[in-house]
Amino acid sequence: MKLPIDTKILIVGLGLMGGSYARALTKQGYEVRSITREPSSVDFALAEGIVTDASTEIRENWIRDADLIVFALYPHIFVEWIEEHGHLIPPGTIITDVTGVKCTVVGQIQSMLPDGVEFIAAHPMAGREVYGVENSDDGIFRGANYIVTPTERNTPEAVALCRSLGETLGFARVSELSPEKHDEMIAFLSQLTHCIAVALMTSNTEPHLVDYTGDSFRDLTRIARINEDMWSELFLLNKKKLVAEIDAFSGELNRMRTYLADENVDKMKEMMRISTERRALFNKKV
Amino acid sequence: MKLPIDTKILIVGLGLMGGSYARALTKQGYEVRSITREPSSVDFALAEGIVTDASTEIRENWIRDADLIVFALYPHIFVEWIEEHGHLIPPGTIITDVTGVKCTVVGQIQSMLPDGVEFIAAHPMAGREVYGVENSDDGIFRGANYIVTPTERNTPEAVALCRSLGETLGFARVSELSPEKHDEMIAFLSQLTHCIAVALMTSNTEPHLVDYTGDSFRDLTRIARINEDMWSELFLLNKKKLVAEIDAFSGELNRMRTYLADENVDKMKEMMRISTERRALFNKKV
Repeated sequence: MKLPIDTKILIVGLGLMGGSYARALTKQGYEVRSITREPSSVDFALAEGIVTDASTEIRENWIRDADLIVFALYPHIFVEWIEEHGHLIPPGTIITDVTGVKCTVVGQIQSMLPDGVEFIAAHPMAGREVYGVENSDDGIFRGANYIVTPTERNTPEAVALCRSLGETLGFARVSELSPEKHDEMIAFLSQLTHCIAVALMTSNTEPHLVDYTGDSFRDLTRIARINEDMWSELFLLNKKKLVAEIDAFSGELNRMRTYLADENVDKMKEMMRISTERRALFNKKV
Repeated sequence: MKLPIDTKILIVGLGLMGGSYARALTKQGYEVRSITREPSSVDFALAEGIVTDASTEIRENWIRDADLIVFALYPHIFVEWIEEHGHLIPPGTIITDVTGVKCTVVGQIQSMLPDGVEFIAAHPMAGREVYGVENSDDGIFRGANYIVTPTERNTPEAVALCRSLGETLGFARVSELSPEKHDEMIAFLSQLTHCIAVALMTSNTEPHLVDYTGDSFRDLTRIARINEDMWSELFLLNKKKLVAEIDAFSGELNRMRTYLADENVDKMKEMMRISTERRALFNKKV
């Protein structure tokens, strides 16, 4: 179900993700205002017509008028913003976010908000290797997952509104996970894979390798182009779970190494068979 | 420079790679015969017209008539074939291969051949995640690397012929590496990446993960569907170099883990910056 067309939406932070949200919503006729830090982002968004209005100032009337506020900020800036301006949000407002980790953020934000303001967290699992509103593109939501992460503080109405937002944005699948399960999943599927890609790029620095690179290596390291400010922050906020996933993966890689060093062909083949079978499960969903 | 059009080519082993060679060469009017083990491969190749003729028998006259014999077999079957039938190859014949490791194979084969038969090794860096002549496709050579790995036993004429084969097949780049450099490169770019993909698939077996998989994880594990017979053999034949690459990579991953556990943000960011810079080099060649 889509958001009611008269829903007034305020997006705080017009970067790649905020800008992509704005595009998707404006295109469908929603009123979308945005508060963001960079004057150039405001200029770009207004010139491109991807928002109804935008400003670098904290417009109190925009905050008051909004039914739904989307925070598309780095986690620590999100927390700072709520500390500084959270009191401006009137009761009855629903707020949501796009943050890539949940356990460390959701409870903190929920406990900081004025009475009657409800934070329902969500993670749009979409992105690009480029940044800024200039690169925003609502096409990134097609085929992607949108995950709502409710806590016991959330109402069914807010959860439903947040799911509607995901559907309105055009995500292929909208689902729910606890913040805990979300962070476990993201530690393995996304954060560990970024650590691997980075370690691959730094582990062999022979320049001639570039000339012989095939598709496998390019696929594994596509995500090695990484925004170090954003990802180091997300890694730290999910430290315990990510360290556990690195350790589990390192254990398996070391198992393959041991079988190889011992020339234990049967065990090597067994790992490869399990891998092949398990990978086939993932193919079905493409 | 392409192979002279009157070059008589014999392909031993009509699998994915042998079949793809046959398609590319037959299409351009070369005479291509093939000896292979499976009657069904012969039937398929003849029905599809991808060879001039094919047989499951060791046709001595085909071996005698060939100017160039391409061995597209698993390494140990290649060695067995030469042991058993190598004496049938007359002096003046050039033989080549498609084997994915070189140091352990090239010297062994060269020392087994009759006088006057020259083995010039090559590695077509192309493939698919499927097998058999039924899936052969000469489109896999487009954009790919073909690497000739000469030793001091090779003549400039044989190297030139082998390079011509790569150009005739339609590879984007034909280059030369020593067997030693080739195996180092392949240990890192190809074998290590396959080990990583397998370890990723076996390190977390929660079934619900499938539902939230994004592109990063799919990219990193595309090659986790792996032919365990072929890859375990290639890994063992390059054991020392592959173990070294696994250790180097594990060291880098552990470095990231340590920075994360210590909350050493500056060092985490530094690794990410180096990774981003280095990955950009690889992009240019796409």
